This record gives sequence, structure tokens and C-alpha cells, in this order.
Amino acid sequence: MIQKLIDKIRQTSAPICVGLDPMLDYIPEQIRKRSFAELGETLAGAADAVWHFNKEIIDCTCDLIPAVKPQIAMYEQFGLEGLKVYEKTVRYCQEKGLIVIGDAKRGDIGSTSAAYAAAHLGKVKVGNQYCSAFDTDFLTVNPYLGTDGVKPFVDVCGAEDKGIFVLVKTSNPSSGEFQDRLIDGRPLYELVADKVAEWGSACMDGVYSNVGAVVGATYPQMSVKLRAQMPHTFFLVPGYGAQGATAQDLRHCFDAEGSGAIVNSSRGIIAAYRQDKYSKFGAEHFGEASRQAVIDMVADINSVL
Amino acid sequence: MIQKLIDKIRQTSAPICVGLDPMLDYIPEQIRKRSFAELGETLAGAADAVWHFNKEIIDCTCDLIPAVKPQIAMYEQFGLEGLKVYEKTVRYCQEKGLIVIGDAKRGDIGSTSAAYAAAHLGKVKVGNQYCSAFDTDFLTVNPYLGTDGVKPFVDVCGAEDKGIFVLVKTSNPSSGEFQDRLIDGRPLYELVADKVAEWGSACMDGVYSNVGAVVGATYPQMSVKLRAQMPHTFFLVPGYGAQGATAQDLRHCFDAEGSGAIVNSSRGIIAAYRQDKYSKFGAEHFGEASRQAVIDMVADINSVL
Repeated sequence: MIQKLIDKIRQTSAPICVGLDPMLDYIPEQIRKRSFAELGETLAGAADAVWHFNKEIIDCTCDLIPAVKPQIAMYEQFGLEGLKVYEKTVRYCQEKGLIVIGDAKRGDIGSTSAAYAAAHLGKVKVGNQYCSAFDTDFLTVNPYLGTDGVKPFVDVCGAEDKGIFVLVKTSNPSSGEFQDRLIDGRPLYELVADKVAEWGSACMDGVYSNVGAVVGATYPQMSVKLRAQMPHTFFLVPGYGAQGATAQDLRHCFDAEGSGAIVNSSRGIIAAYRQDKYSKFGAEHFGEASRQAVIDMVADINSVL
Repeated sequence: MIQKLIDKIRQTSAPICVGLDPMLDYIPEQIRKRSFAELGETLAGAADAVWHFNKEIIDCTCDLIPAVKPQIAMYEQFGLEGLKVYEKTVRYCQEKGLIVIGDAKRGDIGSTSAAYAAAHLGKVKVGNQYCSAFDTDFLTVNPYLGTDGVKPFVDVCGAEDKGIFVLVKTSNPSSGEFQDRLIDGRPLYELVADKVAEWGSACMDGVYSNVGAVVGATYPQMSVKLRAQMPHTFFLVPGYGAQGATAQDLRHCFDAEGSGAIVNSSRGIIAAYRQDKYSKFGAEHFGEASRQAVIDMVADINSVL
């Protein structure tokens, strides 16, 4: 699966993914009004607005990008109605040829992680049938429980040609609170990185492994070391744009050939129409604003590669 | 909310919760057959079987116990159909007067954790309305992202009188891989424990805080120290029974008054009918087997308090 992502990145010359993390606030009033008029100010109304918002952004950007990264929490907050739209969004993106990275940060003890892996990447056996549920291409995974909590995801990557990105160093302000603490002179996230590389060695797909890592762009000096430490691990890089990181900050997440990483932007793309820079599009043409923001982001990232 | 749980534990004299983690394998054939005959070997068929299984166990045990802990992964693996049954199970348990601990181990960067907190504990604003989604009483939370990833859950605990249990030391075999590593001479899980106590201090509800901790019963020597380290933190204790821990092992999770902890058992209760000890009940009467297993577990735990 990672090779498929790398190929799509080459085809589009765009090492980026669009974070489909639709806060209701981001959705232009005309869409919200229409959905609320039809379905009320309810979870169903909110989910309907999210769907129409997503569809427009996908339609306006899908020819330019290799992948999207829907954040499942933004759907889960609207309950079953929201999760219906999560599934619909995943299917619609895949129909458009996009690779879908489900950002769910799941992780638990072994038997439970196996259920999450089946839910999001694999299949579940029902009687004599094998059924798929959310069926994304990649999933983000939390490593706090150690090997037996991650292994079931790795196994599904091997069996179904899917991929995962394991949290190594996250982009948020307090990520260092535990992740940066020194153990035998090395930060915890480097120990996690060692394990990610080890788990991934059983799951290679070309130069890179189907087991990737989440490495936040907001801590550039750390990504330099991690890139060297994990030469076969593909990076999913959050933190660009709205979270503060610049293209220069994330340059070292890439390898010498300019591969090895995909950079996410959520708010900076999907709520572009609200920025001064793109205000000329207006809320009516928010999809076009997102398209222009993608073009600008791709040029910005490529300028440092 | 923690006081409500403590009161329910006193009323029932049962410091235990039943883990509603229905693997399809646990469900007696007669139930699976009936659901598959009606809905096929599909996600809907599987979810229907789970619902009938859960309902029988809840009906047979609800007068004996204070709380249940559904593991959302076991529902998520059946996609939307499974999550419908998760929600239905939560509602049914609450109608029966049970406290529901959603075992979801969510955790992300701040804005995303806020969405998870709204999804599972709080409310989400839609237009001028406030809507609830899964609305459990407690939720388990993963701390790997640090304070800004946990704070939104703590805030909802304060605002809505709900509770969380933050992973400190988990019960699985490889939990020590990261959690036990020494930082300035102390294991990581003790540093997490310090933070959990700190987060919880803003959220007291009687002697204990609404911010609790997950402390696995499988590592008894660690729970002795954690109990002393976190005198105002209530423990959710997994690992009893099928995972190997005995009542003696988890004795030190409780305080001097025999309060301060709730012990979970999943397989040992819900699949009791498959144990030799309860085989006399037969698969037809699996609910009665679960009831007897609850009675035996309560007696076993109380024998060490």
C-alpha cells in the first residue's frame, strides 16, 4: 500500500494530503442553513452539512492530490449520523481514486486492537463470510500499550496490503510532556521510533514499509534525527500551516530523493475561504478557495525539496 | 460522577464491572443462527446477535452490579451496524440503572480530543441546539499526547459531571515496553500517574476525582505504589480472571476502606457458560451462567477487602 501512495504522490507531484476534519464552524452558512432547514438542528442535520461540505472540497481538489486524511473524531462527535458520513466520505474519496488515511489513533490490548484493525483496515468473519466495515487504506495507531497492542494492525497490513502510521512524535504543544522524556539518554519518541522500524521490517513494500510513523512538523530538529534513524519508514507529517510549521520546518522529513513523507493540512485547506488570502473566492466558492490553497501548498512544499 | 459510582458500588456491595466485549465466538450458536437466518451473515446479522447476547447478560446481572464497560472496538468492527448496537447497549444499561464506562481509549491533539469528549461524554452544538451522541458516563482516555490531549476530556467531566479513566499502567503483556521505562529513576507510568493526579485535582467529587486511572491487575507490585501515589484517584482495574490476575493481586488497588477501585471482568463473565465450572447451565442458559460468575467474582473480590 505504501508503494501505491508513493506512486500517487509522484503522479500528482504533490506530497500532501488534505485533512477532512470538518468542524461545523468551518462550513459556510449557506450549507448549514440548507441542511438544518431539511433535517433540523440535529446530529443528522450537522452530518448532512458535513457531507455536502466534504463533497465540494473533494470534487474541487481530487485531481491535484494523492490522498485525504479524515479525522474520525470530527464525525464521531455527531454519533451514528456522523459516522455514516465518515463512511460515505471514505467511499467517495476511494471512488475518486484517492488514498484514504483514517486518522483514528486507535490502540489497545492485543485482542481489542485486532478488532480495531478489522474495523478500519481488514475484514471481520461473520459465519462463513468476510465482511468489511470502514475499510480505509491507512490508519493512525497509538503505541502506548507496546508491541502486542500494535502487532494486530501490522498483521492486517501484511495480509490485506494496507498501511498504518504509528504516533512517534506528535505535533501538539504538550507532545513533549511524555514523548520527549529521556530514557537511557534518549527521548521516549526515539525508542518508539526504534520499535516502529522493527515492526515495519516485516512489512516492506518497496523501499518503504507499510508501517509508517507520525512525525509532527512543528519540531523540525527532531525530524532530522528521526529521518536518519528510520530510513525505511514513511512519515505522515501533521502540523503544517494552521499549527505553525513552515515548508522549511518539514524539509528534513523527506529523503534525499524528495520522497519518504506526506504532509497533511486540514484547516489551511478546508477552511481556506476564511483566510484573507483567499477571501476573494467568498463563502459561496469555498471549494475553489480550497483548490487554490492546495496549489499554493504543493508549490510551497516542492520549493524546499 | 465518581461519587455516583461509589454509591452504586456500596449499594450492590460489588466493586466490579462487567466488560461487554462480545466477540462473535462468545455468542451461543442458537443466537447467531437466529440473527444470521434473519439478516444473513452480514454486519447487520453480527450486530443483531451481539445485541441479543448483551441484552440477556444485562437482564441477568443488572441487579447485582453497579456498572458495565462496553469495549467499543468490539462494536466498531461491525461498522455502523455494530455502533448502532453499542449505542443501544449504552442506553439499555442506563435505563436499567447501570453506570456505563465506555472503553474507547481515545486521545488526540486538543481540538480533536474536544470532539471525542463531545462524542462520548458531552454535547455538541448544532446551530442553537446542544445534542448528545454516545453519552456514556465514563470514558477511557490515552495520555500519549500529553496535557493538551487530555484536558478537553477533563473539562467535560467538570461541565457535565462525567468521568474518565486515563491509561496509566495497562494489563497487557507488553505494557512495560514503554510504560515501565525509567525516566530520572522512575517508570514512565508513574510520571503519567503524577499528571493524572494533577489533572484530577481540578475535578474532585467527594474523596475521589472524576479523573481516574486504568491500573492493570496483572502487575500487583506496581499497584501498591500507585495506590499510595494517587490517594484521590479512583482505579479502573482490568486483567482479573481471563487475563490472569487473582483477587490477591488486585487487593492493593483498593484503599483502607475497601473503596477506590472497580475491577473489570469481560470474558470471565460474558463467556462464563463455556467454562467447565459453569457448564451445567448450558449454552441455552448462558445468562444464568454469567449471573453465577458475577456472584462468584463479587465474593472472590470481597474476600480480600
